[in-house]
Formats: sequence, structure tokens, C-alpha cells
Amino acid sequence: MTTTTSVMRAEIAEQPAALRATLDTLLPLTSEIAALGRQTRQVLFIARGSSDNAAVYGGYLLQAHSGRLATLASPSIATTYGAKVDLDGVLAVAISQSGRTEEIVETMAWAADCGARTVAVTNGEGSPLAEAADVALVTRAGTELAVPATKTYTTQLAALAVLALGLGADLDPAELTRVPDAVDQVLAQPEDDVEAIVERLVGVQGAVVSGRGMAFSTALEAALKLKEACYLHAMGLSYADLLHGPIAVVDSTTPALLTAANSGPTLSGTVALAERVTAAGAPAFGIGGGAALAGACDLAVPVPDLPEWLAPIGLIVPAQLITERLARRLGYNPDAPRGLGKVTQTS
Amino acid sequence: MTTTTSVMRAEIAEQPAALRATLDTLLPLTSEIAALGRQTRQVLFIARGSSDNAAVYGGYLLQAHSGRLATLASPSIATTYGAKVDLDGVLAVAISQSGRTEEIVETMAWAADCGARTVAVTNGEGSPLAEAADVALVTRAGTELAVPATKTYTTQLAALAVLALGLGADLDPAELTRVPDAVDQVLAQPEDDVEAIVERLVGVQGAVVSGRGMAFSTALEAALKLKEACYLHAMGLSYADLLHGPIAVVDSTTPALLTAANSGPTLSGTVALAERVTAAGAPAFGIGGGAALAGACDLAVPVPDLPEWLAPIGLIVPAQLITERLARRLGYNPDAPRGLGKVTQTS
Repeated sequence: MTTTTSVMRAEIAEQPAALRATLDTLLPLTSEIAALGRQTRQVLFIARGSSDNAAVYGGYLLQAHSGRLATLASPSIATTYGAKVDLDGVLAVAISQSGRTEEIVETMAWAADCGARTVAVTNGEGSPLAEAADVALVTRAGTELAVPATKTYTTQLAALAVLALGLGADLDPAELTRVPDAVDQVLAQPEDDVEAIVERLVGVQGAVVSGRGMAFSTALEAALKLKEACYLHAMGLSYADLLHGPIAVVDSTTPALLTAANSGPTLSGTVALAERVTAAGAPAFGIGGGAALAGACDLAVPVPDLPEWLAPIGLIVPAQLITERLARRLGYNPDAPRGLGKVTQTS
Repeated sequence: MTTTTSVMRAEIAEQPAALRATLDTLLPLTSEIAALGRQTRQVLFIARGSSDNAAVYGGYLLQAHSGRLATLASPSIATTYGAKVDLDGVLAVAISQSGRTEEIVETMAWAADCGARTVAVTNGEGSPLAEAADVALVTRAGTELAVPATKTYTTQLAALAVLALGLGADLDPAELTRVPDAVDQVLAQPEDDVEAIVERLVGVQGAVVSGRGMAFSTALEAALKLKEACYLHAMGLSYADLLHGPIAVVDSTTPALLTAANSGPTLSGTVALAERVTAAGAPAFGIGGGAALAGACDLAVPVPDLPEWLAPIGLIVPAQLITERLARRLGYNPDAPRGLGKVTQTS
């Protein structure tokens, strides 16, 4: 069943509008967030799947720029072990596209019970998660029909950028408001590079996907997309973890997909990784990273300049385009991968 | 280059002795750990590679049984971003086999500078990490020569079990002292099941490796071993994350390797996952999980009964045996995977 286009493709294109609507709604809430910030000292994210990848972004963003410890919860501590944990001084930030995944709703309630204050980041207005949180950051992605999350993911990242500003990060809000235009630019680019990478991925069973710092979230999300819609053995790994063993797995038939902001402290390491991958005889494909990363890779997709802290909102877009095209090229329907529904319930 | 045996195989067999020596050395340190526990409220692990998988175990163990929040640090916040984070009340636990990986040494120093107290878990007596920590838990694995960590990993798990006891976990130390005998039993078992699984993995390019709660650490570590020594596209995923997308990737040529303790709260979910995988037409191979998991899988390796909190020390052993045999079966040298050295430096 090869389709010539997809709902996923249409939803990818809706991201600039979704981001504008989300920022318009959420930027006025920074003082409410600041009030929660004064009652807490650190952040604990509660999420699964794409939302968990958004949480990885949030963790780097808050730790690099707000001076707060920001780490990821293990929901099964609440839902499977039923353990009590001291969460005094913790701001629990639960992220769920639907706001209805029971595991996430339950874990946020557990966090509150353990002494945390709570924020919900969700596209589900009026959802149980939004209703239960001290502050709800409701994204304005509109209805998302394709199973692979696209606009709900990038608007989650935007919500987390607003969260960081509310918690006093040393960052310029004006840079955030320029993000929708940058995503428009990514979408307006000719797709030759995307198409060339897709053709190189057609015969491939597995790939390593890597990025560092803020862009680690992009690597994890790109790997998840490629696994769920293209059934590729995509292994999302941080730069450092990759060098601790899994670098062995790259070879002429197992390429590396590498991503970095066009500038910032993680670029040089990502370029060095591309050089190491190609020296090992494996293909390297880049997303972003400016001329330096493109020069070290076999193929690369450029993205417009965005400050490093906001780059992940733009970097994921070429990965979404690659996923959507590769799925169709392989004869799959990207909108409805096998075995998956839109609201995932785990228990 | 096919070898008939390996240093890795010999080091796997040394684990009971290494565990006994480690417990003898570390169990007397619980009061020192308790003193640090009184000065702190939560734990932050600092680690990479296999040590990071040990940290995942430590996180579940402490949160399920000691009432303390215990999460994973992002070392690049220290080493790449150079950011200051408020770590007052935090016990930073840095885990490194060698105690010489600069990134980990540097991140522990950063944590102390940010207000944390520190514990080192390392096999490197007199190493920079051991010397710099407030308390050093030095494991007694002896020299490990094969690149894939085996006895340094299981002794790290034992050290983290001691840490949990020192921090007041509601657990019985006598259960811990029975672990070396249980590992002896795993090693004394006939290896027919291990061999049968290896034969089924020979023609395979990728596999999903999954476990839940405490056993999630085992899944991650098994996936790392299979990637680094067998170049398998092994995707280590938690039960819940697997259902959020990557379940799509399993098929007749992409098996699932599933692991669980023989009893405890995560067993039923793992059995249900095995049923779902086989219903999707993919092979399921089990490690542990008693008769219930074995009954739901195509093939399974039994492990002796251990309480759920200690099960990961036994569960990883069949995965080590599978890795070592599969590497040789594929014509690789498990002791020296391509592209890897014993002490990994990332910068």
C-alpha cells in the first residue's frame, strides 16, 4: 500500500501555525510558572514515548540555563511499585500529548501526593492531566490524526521553552518568538537532500542516531520515528554513550544519522563523531550542524540558524520528513504503523 | 577469526568470587553510607555505558525501597555546558569501572562544587574517582581484560545494593549475601537454552530487548553487550516505552529478548509483552521470569530464585553467555570488539 502523500505530511506542514498559536497562548503564563518556581527547587519530568524525548530536551534546557536540577522520573515507581518518594521541593512536569495516558495521569497524581507541585504539558484541553495540574500548559497543535507525533511534539518543545523562561532561565524570549518562521524556512527548502538520504536508507535495516546535549532529544525522537513508522532498527544514543560500546555497530550497511545545532558547544564533538564514523567505513548523514557537519558527512540537510537552546524545534523537522518519505518509499502507511494506536495505555 | 573460548568467558565465570569479595569489603561500610544519607535527601547517578545501566538499577532500587528520589545526571551539563546547578541535599553517586574516565571524574567534581556529597563506585582502587569521593565503594572484581564489562558490572550492582542498605532501604541484607551462590547456580546450569537462543540469533540483524522496573537495567545492559560484541542492532527499551511506538519494529526477523525476575510486580507485564510479541509473529526469548515467562516465550533460560530487588545480578549472566557465544559463532572476538578500548574517554 504505497500512498503518494499522508496525513503525517500535512501535519508536519502545520507546525509553524501550531507553534505560533502555542506561543501566543503560553507566553502569557510565565508569571504563573514563576510562582511555582518560587515554591520549588528542581524539576522532575514524567513522560513516555515522544513526550519523553521532549522531556530530555527540557532537562538539558533547564539544567544548562536555569540552575535547577531537572531529571526524568520512572513512572513504574508509582504505578508498579506503589512506592512513596520524598518529592518536597520538586516541580513535577507531566508531558502527554493526549493528557489521557493513564500511567502519566496516575504518576502525576502520585507526585503531588509525595509533595510535588505539578505542571501539565499537553495538547488535550480539558483532559484529566490538564485538569489535575497546578498549572496546565496546553499546546495549540490542533487535532493530530497520524500516529507518529509531529506537531504535538514540536509544540511540547515550545511549551518547555516557555517553562524555562518562567523558571528564570538566562534566555531571550524574543528568540523563541522567531522559531515558527525558522520552521517555515525548513519546510520551504527544496527536499533534494531529504530525498537523497531516504534513498540511501531504503536498503538498510539499522542505523545509529546520535546528538549531544539539547540535540540528544532530537536524536532520540528521530530514532523513535524511524522505528515506529519505517520499522528501521534505529538506535538513538548520546554521543558519549555511543563511544562507550555501540560505536562498534556502525559499518557500511549501518549508517549514522547525526544532528547538531549550527553553533554552540556540542557542534565540534558531533563533527568529530561524523569523522570517526566515516573513517570506520560507515555512511554519515547530517541534520543541521552548519557547514562543519555537512562537510564531515556524506549527505546533510541544512536548517536555518536558531540559537542552540531552540535548535531542537527546527532539527526534528527534517527527521520527520525523512521518516514520512521513507515509510512511503518502503510501501508503508506512515499514518498508521502496525500495532499502534494514538493514545497508548500501559499498565 | 573464530576462537573456541575467550577471556570474556573466563571473566563471566569469575563473578561469584568477585561478588563474594566485593560484599565482604563493602557491607562493613553501611554506617559510613548512612552518615552521608543523613546529610542528603536524594541521589543523582553519574555514569556512562555499562555503568549507566547499573545506575538505572540503582535508581529503581532506591526509589522503590528507600523513599529517596534517585535519578540520572547528564554529564554534559558539567563538561560541555559548564553550567552551575543547585545540588544542595544531593548525594552524587559516580560509577566508573576504571575510575579514570575523565568525563565521570570531572562531573563528580562538578557535583561536589555544586553542593553535593559524593560516593564513588569503582573497581579502580586508588583511582582519581575513588580518591576524590567522600566515600569510595571499591568493588573487588579483580583485573578485567575483555572489553565487554561482565564482573565489573555485576559487582557494581552489588555495590549499589549495599548503598541502598546503607541509605535505609527496607530490605534484608541476608538476601544479598546469598547472591554469589545464585550466580554460581546460573553458571552450573546446562547451556542448551543459551545455545538454542544463540542459534536463533545467528541470522538476525536486530532485536528488541526489554524489561521493566529493576529488570529494565538488565535489558539495557544486554542490549549494550549485543551491540558492542555481536554488532547486533539491539534496541534496549522499557516495557512501557516499547508500547509507545517501537513495538512496531518486531517481526519474524526481529525477535524480542525479554527479562524479568521470577516473581514480583513486573513479571505479569513482561509475560503479557511476550504474548503480544508472539501474537505479532515475532519470536520471543526469555531470561528468567520463571515458568510464566518461559511458557509465553519460544525459548527461555531459567535463573534461580532471587528476590526481585537482587534479580538483576543473576539475570544479566545468561545475557553475557549469549553475547559471548554469539560473538564467537559469528566469527568475532568477544574480547576486543572493533573500535573500542577498555577505558573510554569522551570529551
